[in-house]
Amino acid sequence: MTTNKTVPSDIEIAQQATMQNITKIARGIGLVEDDIELFGKYKAKLSYEAIERLKTAKNGRLILVTAINPTAAGEGKSTVTVGLGDALQKKGKSAMIAMREPSLGPVMGVKGGATGGGYAQVLPMEDINLHFTGDIHAITTANNALSAMIDNHLHQGNECKIDPRRIIWKRVLDMNDRALRKVVVGLGGPVQGVPREDGFDITVASEIMAVLCLATDLEDLKRRLSLIVVAYTYDKEPITVADIGVEGALTLLLKDALKPNLVQTIEQTPALVHGGPFANIAHGCNSVMATSAALKLADYVVTEAGFGADLGAEKFLNIKTRAAGVHPDAIVIVATIRALKMHGGQNKTALKEENIPALQAGLENLEKHIETIQAFGLPHVVAINRFITDTTEETKVLTEWCRNKQTPYALTEVWEKGGEGGLELAEQVLAAMEKPSFFSPIYSLQDSLADKISKVATEVYGAKEVVFSNKAQKQLEQFESYGWGELPICMAKTQYSLSDDAAKLGRPKDFTLHIRELLPKIGAGFIVALTGDVMTMPGLPKNPAALKMNVSLEGKAVGLF
Amino acid sequence: MTTNKTVPSDIEIAQQATMQNITKIARGIGLVEDDIELFGKYKAKLSYEAIERLKTAKNGRLILVTAINPTAAGEGKSTVTVGLGDALQKKGKSAMIAMREPSLGPVMGVKGGATGGGYAQVLPMEDINLHFTGDIHAITTANNALSAMIDNHLHQGNECKIDPRRIIWKRVLDMNDRALRKVVVGLGGPVQGVPREDGFDITVASEIMAVLCLATDLEDLKRRLSLIVVAYTYDKEPITVADIGVEGALTLLLKDALKPNLVQTIEQTPALVHGGPFANIAHGCNSVMATSAALKLADYVVTEAGFGADLGAEKFLNIKTRAAGVHPDAIVIVATIRALKMHGGQNKTALKEENIPALQAGLENLEKHIETIQAFGLPHVVAINRFITDTTEETKVLTEWCRNKQTPYALTEVWEKGGEGGLELAEQVLAAMEKPSFFSPIYSLQDSLADKISKVATEVYGAKEVVFSNKAQKQLEQFESYGWGELPICMAKTQYSLSDDAAKLGRPKDFTLHIRELLPKIGAGFIVALTGDVMTMPGLPKNPAALKMNVSLEGKAVGLF
Repeated sequence: MTTNKTVPSDIEIAQQATMQNITKIARGIGLVEDDIELFGKYKAKLSYEAIERLKTAKNGRLILVTAINPTAAGEGKSTVTVGLGDALQKKGKSAMIAMREPSLGPVMGVKGGATGGGYAQVLPMEDINLHFTGDIHAITTANNALSAMIDNHLHQGNECKIDPRRIIWKRVLDMNDRALRKVVVGLGGPVQGVPREDGFDITVASEIMAVLCLATDLEDLKRRLSLIVVAYTYDKEPITVADIGVEGALTLLLKDALKPNLVQTIEQTPALVHGGPFANIAHGCNSVMATSAALKLADYVVTEAGFGADLGAEKFLNIKTRAAGVHPDAIVIVATIRALKMHGGQNKTALKEENIPALQAGLENLEKHIETIQAFGLPHVVAINRFITDTTEETKVLTEWCRNKQTPYALTEVWEKGGEGGLELAEQVLAAMEKPSFFSPIYSLQDSLADKISKVATEVYGAKEVVFSNKAQKQLEQFESYGWGELPICMAKTQYSLSDDAAKLGRPKDFTLHIRELLPKIGAGFIVALTGDVMTMPGLPKNPAALKMNVSLEGKAVGLF
Repeated sequence: MTTNKTVPSDIEIAQQATMQNITKIARGIGLVEDDIELFGKYKAKLSYEAIERLKTAKNGRLILVTAINPTAAGEGKSTVTVGLGDALQKKGKSAMIAMREPSLGPVMGVKGGATGGGYAQVLPMEDINLHFTGDIHAITTANNALSAMIDNHLHQGNECKIDPRRIIWKRVLDMNDRALRKVVVGLGGPVQGVPREDGFDITVASEIMAVLCLATDLEDLKRRLSLIVVAYTYDKEPITVADIGVEGALTLLLKDALKPNLVQTIEQTPALVHGGPFANIAHGCNSVMATSAALKLADYVVTEAGFGADLGAEKFLNIKTRAAGVHPDAIVIVATIRALKMHGGQNKTALKEENIPALQAGLENLEKHIETIQAFGLPHVVAINRFITDTTEETKVLTEWCRNKQTPYALTEVWEKGGEGGLELAEQVLAAMEKPSFFSPIYSLQDSLADKISKVATEVYGAKEVVFSNKAQKQLEQFESYGWGELPICMAKTQYSLSDDAAKLGRPKDFTLHIRELLPKIGAGFIVALTGDVMTMPGLPKNPAALKMNVSLEGKAVGLF
């Protein structure tokens, strides 16, 4: 944004937008009335019949939006995703967006939704940011039904010989609630169950969210659910959902949540907003169901993955592509001058001030992500997401750097202008997709777990070496012995740095990546490698956003963002 | 049911039924397309605009279905409610049903839904018994957002001076999960919050469920939410939701949940299924919003209240009528020969066997409930809900008893025959409503809390006296000093007996009712009087129903009931 005029808040823009009836949006992409299940006038789920019928259609082309290592505020990846979809539609293309649905918990905590921003938003934003179509509530329910069944199993005789000290399945709530991180359950005597240590994660960190997002249909969902490892026996043998016998009930609880949700942008571009797994402890992309359906419904599909290219894009390309059977035709790397200056040493509190040397120094972060995308064999475009504080000189330095590197780039102003502000990006992306691509994941599934981790660490992060803790070392052997050796790896690492140290900005070199622990996510179909403590249950700040929320007498959200 | 033919299961009947598109059902009661918000083809919410517009319409007549003290399996009150609605429609009347929505937790535990049975069911039963339109999930979220805000308040400096030992607000899940009854939260050191004892209830036991069911509009919802007492200070002063500052956010989270849900019966009679508070720790009736809207939309509205007339009907007549500003025009008391024999001393395992003396002895339970309804000044009809095991002689004894008492009665076979099996009941109910009625609650709000409890105990239960524990005695004084003396009373008592001892069947006399403790539910607007331990978080049985559940590849529920 280059002007000084005041801009209304996201919710003001969203509530002033004119939405089309979702049946009309559906018709625009070739769907008939029976293909969708309405949730009010502006939300719908695709029916299984429609998805089945679409299977024979030809796939459109897929554009993945990723970013450099972000600042705490994020670099506007969702906004660019929405704006690029709008821009493609504005250019007369058949375009759709596939993106994650936001978790309600953080909405109560810190101001800021996850449905884009400014004039590049998906609507109805207040619904999508609150209960939406209930998918996350269904996951909470399925997760906690499994927990109740496990504790009931312990209480009713423990036929499976679950070691109560080795239950790895936690309860969840879609809430920022630090007091639930570590709890003791089953207190109160023999009638109230078996006392044990437990904890709650936020729902989007549940393995069931990852399972839902990687499943290709109801049958695959059930198969994945049955494989989830929930505990170990006293003999350290894994116990699965199938051992507990509850995969049918969990699938039943998720039968509607698996259907992708159809909504629209402010510019009435169709969007599938579905699934939102954590981008550290899980893979951080919207559902395979949504991406696959969008590819059948549009010629161009814009999607995104969480955090920077070292996390979200790496997992999209090594994990999701394998589950979905498709890969992106082009990658957009979102960069901001603010964040590049931070990577070049500018103080975080002074990112609004011009600092050419810091910008120049910070460009090496962008450079590394470009190299990573090239290593995957895919064409890319750098999207320079403009902020009002960017100076002419700074913009010139960045664009000249891109030109010198012969890297395609575009300035975007989608936050302020919607699709109009993304036309240049759309042109660059369309051009990039004409280039030959040679997609190949960074590692083979036949590589050992340790080798997969090493390849990501060295080739994507630029690490010198990987050091495994004693615990992780032991787990590598155990997990291979359980037959989990051929699963892909899901790295859990800070999003702020290419390394496992959030303070190492720019392009750290010669660093060692430390693997503390591995977590089996056998239903999701990957092994999580933890490089440090991962926060899976956020807390509320001193003045939570909830304190300002309200609703008008007509039922409109007030103070949401 | 009087034949021996095998009858399909509830879910088989439900899935074979032909539903009308809910927009057509809505049109049938004078609603236009914009009056409803669709949830798929067969569920919808009434919009606030429609409810506002309906306010000027004339009220129909209200029929409340209650029962004698039930057996553990229940006496078919919901089934009779649905069947009576169908019968009235069959007779050409403009009729609607208003009933509670079932909690998902128990569905996972013990076989048996709460949407009627046989050919008298509301549909789509699998949706209604699972996530439905997400109302209960919204209540779970609002309840737990409040909990997170309370613990965050403690953690961030405790400005309100909450005594962590005196937090009475518990977390909830819509799950049968005994291991969560008593827990310790906030463990793990200073970063994870303040350790304290806590516990989880099932969501339908949340005060927010009672609040939602008694609120008359969004403004009243917010007012009630703000009044909820969540804790006490170190000086024992009550702390409310308004003190925490989160009433706006909670109202926002509940803004759609407050809208009544429109569905249909197997015979396509319109039904509002909305809200389902516990019938012991809360008042056990569907929402005021649903009852009020139904009365505007139909000439005859059939509704129900939980457990027997001593609990559900008493609370309907003393609590809900005051919040809703309407009262029933007639009461249906459901009785079964099985249950009457149990009240007369027949062994619970032999209820299928003929036993005339036991039946005759058990009739005094029915007699007491008839007297109670008469004490409220309302006409009644006894609905004899027939079972295949009822003998001709038993039926004759019961009907002759009714004739001798000049009590109107009707045999119903709605489980087997739908509305056709309730025609006689419909005629009797229509006739009863022609009689003069002189409705008056049992107590005045100006009575002291102790007097209100005494009046219910003596006039409804038939107790000789009430004895308050020391704790309850002290609370009576405290609560009056907090200004809560003019609230109605919500009794929490076993449903199996008129007394507070589940083993005292029939019509116990000269017994003492013991009040153990009082609970303030200031948002709901009543004081709960506990007569013993009340189970607010059920457990799962050794072989939970969840083990048999599944879903077909097309997304149909299997093994639900």
